[in-house]
Amino acid sequence: MEPGYAPHTTAASHTAGRATARPCSTPGGAARETQRTARAALTRILEPGDETAGRWVREMGPVALWRALSDEDATPPRGASPAKTEGLRLRAARARPAADLAAVTALGGRFICPGDDEWPGQLDDLGDARPLGLWVRGTANLRLWALRSVAVVGARACTDYGAHLATTLSAGLADRGWTVVSGAAYGVDGAAHRGALAADGATIAVMASGVDYAYPRGHTELLGRIAEQGLVVAELPPGDHPTRSRFIQRNRVIAALTRGTVVVEAELRSGSLVTARRARSLGRFTMGMPGPVTSSLSAGVHQLLRDEATVVTDADEVIELVGSIGDLAPGRRGPTLTRDLLDPVATRVLEALPAQGSTDVGRLAEEAGTPREVTQGKLFELLSLGFVQRCGGHWELARRAEAADGSRRGGA
Amino acid sequence: MEPGYAPHTTAASHTAGRATARPCSTPGGAARETQRTARAALTRILEPGDETAGRWVREMGPVALWRALSDEDATPPRGASPAKTEGLRLRAARARPAADLAAVTALGGRFICPGDDEWPGQLDDLGDARPLGLWVRGTANLRLWALRSVAVVGARACTDYGAHLATTLSAGLADRGWTVVSGAAYGVDGAAHRGALAADGATIAVMASGVDYAYPRGHTELLGRIAEQGLVVAELPPGDHPTRSRFIQRNRVIAALTRGTVVVEAELRSGSLVTARRARSLGRFTMGMPGPVTSSLSAGVHQLLRDEATVVTDADEVIELVGSIGDLAPGRRGPTLTRDLLDPVATRVLEALPAQGSTDVGRLAEEAGTPREVTQGKLFELLSLGFVQRCGGHWELARRAEAADGSRRGGA
Repeated sequence: MEPGYAPHTTAASHTAGRATARPCSTPGGAARETQRTARAALTRILEPGDETAGRWVREMGPVALWRALSDEDATPPRGASPAKTEGLRLRAARARPAADLAAVTALGGRFICPGDDEWPGQLDDLGDARPLGLWVRGTANLRLWALRSVAVVGARACTDYGAHLATTLSAGLADRGWTVVSGAAYGVDGAAHRGALAADGATIAVMASGVDYAYPRGHTELLGRIAEQGLVVAELPPGDHPTRSRFIQRNRVIAALTRGTVVVEAELRSGSLVTARRARSLGRFTMGMPGPVTSSLSAGVHQLLRDEATVVTDADEVIELVGSIGDLAPGRRGPTLTRDLLDPVATRVLEALPAQGSTDVGRLAEEAGTPREVTQGKLFELLSLGFVQRCGGHWELARRAEAADGSRRGGA
Repeated sequence: MEPGYAPHTTAASHTAGRATARPCSTPGGAARETQRTARAALTRILEPGDETAGRWVREMGPVALWRALSDEDATPPRGASPAKTEGLRLRAARARPAADLAAVTALGGRFICPGDDEWPGQLDDLGDARPLGLWVRGTANLRLWALRSVAVVGARACTDYGAHLATTLSAGLADRGWTVVSGAAYGVDGAAHRGALAADGATIAVMASGVDYAYPRGHTELLGRIAEQGLVVAELPPGDHPTRSRFIQRNRVIAALTRGTVVVEAELRSGSLVTARRARSLGRFTMGMPGPVTSSLSAGVHQLLRDEATVVTDADEVIELVGSIGDLAPGRRGPTLTRDLLDPVATRVLEALPAQGSTDVGRLAEEAGTPREVTQGKLFELLSLGFVQRCGGHWELARRAEAADGSRRGGA
């Protein structure tokens, strides 16, 4: 079983939900679970992207911070105003991390933390604004999927043109084995997820609410499909609702998680531009799909293109750009892992692939004896690891992967 | 009277049209006229953009080159193959420069040469591919108009969208006192000229044929209007026809003459992209107006934007870019010339402007007692020199110009 997939309700000492966390010095797995519980609690207490709080976490550790906020007699975190401390303590009193962890497990999900094998290390680029942890629904490995991912974002009230672009682009990215990340909003976001899903591709929805809080309501069914076939990810604990600032902070996660952000349609001063600029400031690629200069919904994209972004018109151009970072593209140079280190399900799926030619997910699922969604998820993980490649919706062994594997077997 | 406006039919020694040119050492105006006649003859003999021939001109001078090509017993130019020499001599035998000069004069035009006051010095950036001279129809001063000019080029078979963009952009450029340069072709070129004309603006058509050879035929009337209200310019002598290579070579003149080139609509591998890339290689700005990525007529523009060009969506953005070269923008820092050096007509027009507020061309023409087209042309020259500014189709004294002029008058 892969790390990060374990049910976390076994953190028994915290079932009451009140902070009685042991110090970080507790040895081994128990310390890890204590830390995880503290981080889960903190996602209920601290607002996403709060850099002051991020500094406290860095300086004190999550367990001590949670204790400082839970115990009225404890010393408040350094530099915290009385008002801020009071507000955070009111929230801390209501935090029930064990219940939240149980809730996400009930949804078939998990809570992943910095240091976990599934943690996407690129989020560390956010510094003290790094998420405390991520609540995740879906079976795929977030880290592996995010390795080869692109954000596709844009206007909620997009035109047919924008929806068409987002769908086509995302289908194209998915077809070429890239994960499409977006915010599950109406308009471009929804079209991006749908395009990837329709191409049997990998897609991640990053929410500004809890993973079980369908927002917008009209996307309840879509979010259900993403949770089944892809991943739904949130900084906020189950049940929590979105706010204006949470939407803005959510955008930084989209920007940091992906190798680049493509803005499809955006008005001037739109949130998508904020995501793109954040991506830029994080050293990610920013791209824009142009449109008629007569359309106000392309005005924001054109402004971005004038300032700092690259014109892209299809998936190939996006991949040409984001795929150019050699050290992040294991698929280009063969597997980065030996087969022995794969989890059993991934190994079964890999072994189900024919030595010659390609096959589809349905057959592979049958051959490997794994559910279709799980097979699909594992294939994208194997792709990120360089074992397989995707070709027009079909899957085959990566040619370089085979060579690398062969030489490993036959050689010294 | 301004230099370059003089009728050149007085170059009496060449009325026979056969080369009997005197050497360059002939002193004063006569030598100048001899050189002019030789250059006029060479425009009939050499193809535009022939760099080998350009080297001959540089090394031998136009008079000696014309002699070498006209006299069968003369030594051929250095490195010229017998076949090339023979071909050029066949053309030289038919050259009638005095007749050509008379023809352009009869059209109200002139032939301007490197070294003339009206010669646009930026064409020297073309090196040995610099035009031998330019045949010009229209009353305005080519050098002054080209100082503040932008090329607007694009597809012949443009869409309504492209035609709309070209018209609006050119009207906007003209409104802000910029000269619109294009190639008078169908589609974007025509729309660009029309937009400038409709805004009572300055526009220059650079032809791939003689200035009196209306190409395309359907633009005969448009070219007539440009010759009246703007300038029609050609490397080729009157009556000469366009060829495929002449279209391509014409593009280098458009690129070199202007501060930047805007491509409005262009398919992949279109001639407009050649113009833009030439502009780029000459250190000019290259710009593109994006369009729907679903349109093949925007595909070339998007390719250009990906490679090397800046996204622009309106005239302000174009001017923001091309107007940023301080030393080429006299309007930004007041007149570069004292009033005393202005020609009498320009002085009359300048003096007709009210001390306060703005006025239109019609009133100015009446006040100055100059024809409307002449008044218009002089106003754009005065604008290039920094004396006046244009504001929504009206004209007024440049504020900085006034200050500069006032300080000159009142100061030391």
